[in-house]
Amino acid sequence: MDVDAANRAAVERMLAARPRLVGVARADQVLPDFGGRMLLHAGPPIEWPRMSGPLRGALIGAALYEGWASDPEGAGELLASGGVRFDACHHHGAAGPMAGVVAPSFAVWVVEESTFGGRCFSTLNEGSGKVLRFGAYAPEVLERLRWLNETLAPLLGAALAATGGFDLRAAIAEMLHRGDEGHCSSLAGSLMLLRHLAPAIARAAAPSETRGRALEVLGGNWLAILNPIMAACKAICDAGHGVAGSTLVTRLARNGTDFGIRVSGAGERWFTGPAQVPVGVFYEGFDQSQANPDIGDSVITECAGIGAFAMAAAPAIARLVGGTPASAVQATLDMYRITVAEHPDFTIPGLGFRGTPTGIDARRVVELDLPPHVNTGIAHEEPGIGQIGFGLVRPPMQPFREALAALAG
Amino acid sequence: MDVDAANRAAVERMLAARPRLVGVARADQVLPDFGGRMLLHAGPPIEWPRMSGPLRGALIGAALYEGWASDPEGAGELLASGGVRFDACHHHGAAGPMAGVVAPSFAVWVVEESTFGGRCFSTLNEGSGKVLRFGAYAPEVLERLRWLNETLAPLLGAALAATGGFDLRAAIAEMLHRGDEGHCSSLAGSLMLLRHLAPAIARAAAPSETRGRALEVLGGNWLAILNPIMAACKAICDAGHGVAGSTLVTRLARNGTDFGIRVSGAGERWFTGPAQVPVGVFYEGFDQSQANPDIGDSVITECAGIGAFAMAAAPAIARLVGGTPASAVQATLDMYRITVAEHPDFTIPGLGFRGTPTGIDARRVVELDLPPHVNTGIAHEEPGIGQIGFGLVRPPMQPFREALAALAG
Repeated sequence: MDVDAANRAAVERMLAARPRLVGVARADQVLPDFGGRMLLHAGPPIEWPRMSGPLRGALIGAALYEGWASDPEGAGELLASGGVRFDACHHHGAAGPMAGVVAPSFAVWVVEESTFGGRCFSTLNEGSGKVLRFGAYAPEVLERLRWLNETLAPLLGAALAATGGFDLRAAIAEMLHRGDEGHCSSLAGSLMLLRHLAPAIARAAAPSETRGRALEVLGGNWLAILNPIMAACKAICDAGHGVAGSTLVTRLARNGTDFGIRVSGAGERWFTGPAQVPVGVFYEGFDQSQANPDIGDSVITECAGIGAFAMAAAPAIARLVGGTPASAVQATLDMYRITVAEHPDFTIPGLGFRGTPTGIDARRVVELDLPPHVNTGIAHEEPGIGQIGFGLVRPPMQPFREALAALAG
Repeated sequence: MDVDAANRAAVERMLAARPRLVGVARADQVLPDFGGRMLLHAGPPIEWPRMSGPLRGALIGAALYEGWASDPEGAGELLASGGVRFDACHHHGAAGPMAGVVAPSFAVWVVEESTFGGRCFSTLNEGSGKVLRFGAYAPEVLERLRWLNETLAPLLGAALAATGGFDLRAAIAEMLHRGDEGHCSSLAGSLMLLRHLAPAIARAAAPSETRGRALEVLGGNWLAILNPIMAACKAICDAGHGVAGSTLVTRLARNGTDFGIRVSGAGERWFTGPAQVPVGVFYEGFDQSQANPDIGDSVITECAGIGAFAMAAAPAIARLVGGTPASAVQATLDMYRITVAEHPDFTIPGLGFRGTPTGIDARRVVELDLPPHVNTGIAHEEPGIGQIGFGLVRPPMQPFREALAALAG
């Protein structure tokens, strides 16, 4: 099979994937090979000495959350000394936003892909600002996370059980018609998820105040659906993986130090290069000089053909990441040049319902010297602070070149 | 003051209006001069012999609902014989979608306009298909309406009281960035209203099943926010009314037989012409030949500069009313030719955040022979059936010409 045919086969599998949000569970009860004194993180594997500030901060927070240390200094020493095992989320079926840290007792969304089978997972989105996934670990951050994992999560799980699940493919299709690109802008999708879950939560036997707060937290987070979408996009990309000879990119991920990719025909190998610093729009009191290099598994959305690839569908939020309505359209048009298909169901009204550019061909990236566009949140480079803005970033070219070289034998 | 200055003064008042959704009440307790054996309807005043099928159907339904008759035939006879007084919604502070019928015991949303003062009202939206506002009156239609008025309405009112109200100006601004034009397409806005009200409804002491159904009905109706928006747009247009010498159109409304307008400088006089038949996209089993002439007060949204005037913000739903993304953009561009201002807060991302065309100048309509674009739902021409589609319609030119003649003295 030639490369074009292999890529066609791989992308057809991506386009046929049907991810569905079916439940909520404790991470160590559903993630494969996960448990004990182990923490997962975003991006390719990395050890403590090379980790950036926000990833260290999130790991410190997770160690405190799990009770493995009683203060941040102790947690840092434990983590630096090898007392906790680290691994990449992607090695355990998960995709984690920003630092992407998953601890054994965290709650995770469960996404099932029904065309080829398989499950993917992601934590609950904590909202914006000072949150664990951006490296914050203050007591109020952990307290909020505990409420999400222990009080909200069971309500969400029961609501999904009562409704038979939530079709994420349909939700993504609808979001793109409602001003979302499905990554940094997910308001419409989050409200659709709220609409789906709210009746069952309102019916729940939980205390009145818990029901109310659950809907306030869910409705107040315009990224609530981002984590389920990341798991869905991972499922979509996983479906396209493993086709012999294919140069299709089936994973993009960054850990705050390295940007890593995986290619359909090159097995489980990561190809990595240095993560770039996003150029962004910053919250008041912060600026570009404090931005950490690119971090998080959320770029799996771009890998699946949404996010920055669908930016033309979200002109209203172009300013959020530092663009304009015109640059939003251009970002999508650029991405048609490096992709092999247009999605039949994820369409962009403003482009005459043209399908989103799907299936990145590493060959085209290298030939055109055109890396993927990526929308992203921006973390402060120091641990303990959190999110300081949103921005745009381009991955390094090196991993794409190395992947082609490896495929060429 | 010359006409241009008068129009500027009038539109400045429209742009400064700040409508807010503050409560829910029984119609005969809040609408001015309303009660007893009286029913309100959309559009300019009309008596029974000239009414179209869906308006008659809705009035029959309302008479049955109020217990003034025990069957449709008896209700028809009562209404035909002068046993019930009719008047226009607009004469009592209300704006009603489609037939727009308001009965004394119906629940209404209460909208307060805070810049100039004043209150406007609208009934609760019943959802799509076989509903009273499109002329249906079967027992299940009335039963559903009773649940809305007697069970849902108090929950909504309590939720608004608990939250201090809902800013409709802000909601419209956000909707236009989320694929809504605020008239036939109001999904994003309806979900924002759901998000606002859901926590308080989930906290309510009502039975579990009532809480759940309330959120299902609210979340399941993508036009839930249309009626509050109509009251808000009426408040906006009312703010621009009464400026001496102004040719600004401050009301557009149709009753299924006549299309009526009011002009800022011409007092309370209605100028009317024959309502046109919308050209539409029909539900399965229905077609153009069954379409009733244009009906409803919802065209107050176009009068306030949204709806078809903001169609460029809603390319995804162009097909719903029979257009394309390109024709959606053109509809908005056309309307800049007949309006005197661009709204500072209601903006269209796809047009580089240009403000919506606001403040129809009757002079320009006549000079350019360019009537306003209107998006609309379409009712079956016979009573008792309901909605059969969505479409586009242009008002007759005659009322605009007559208004100018009247202003010229």
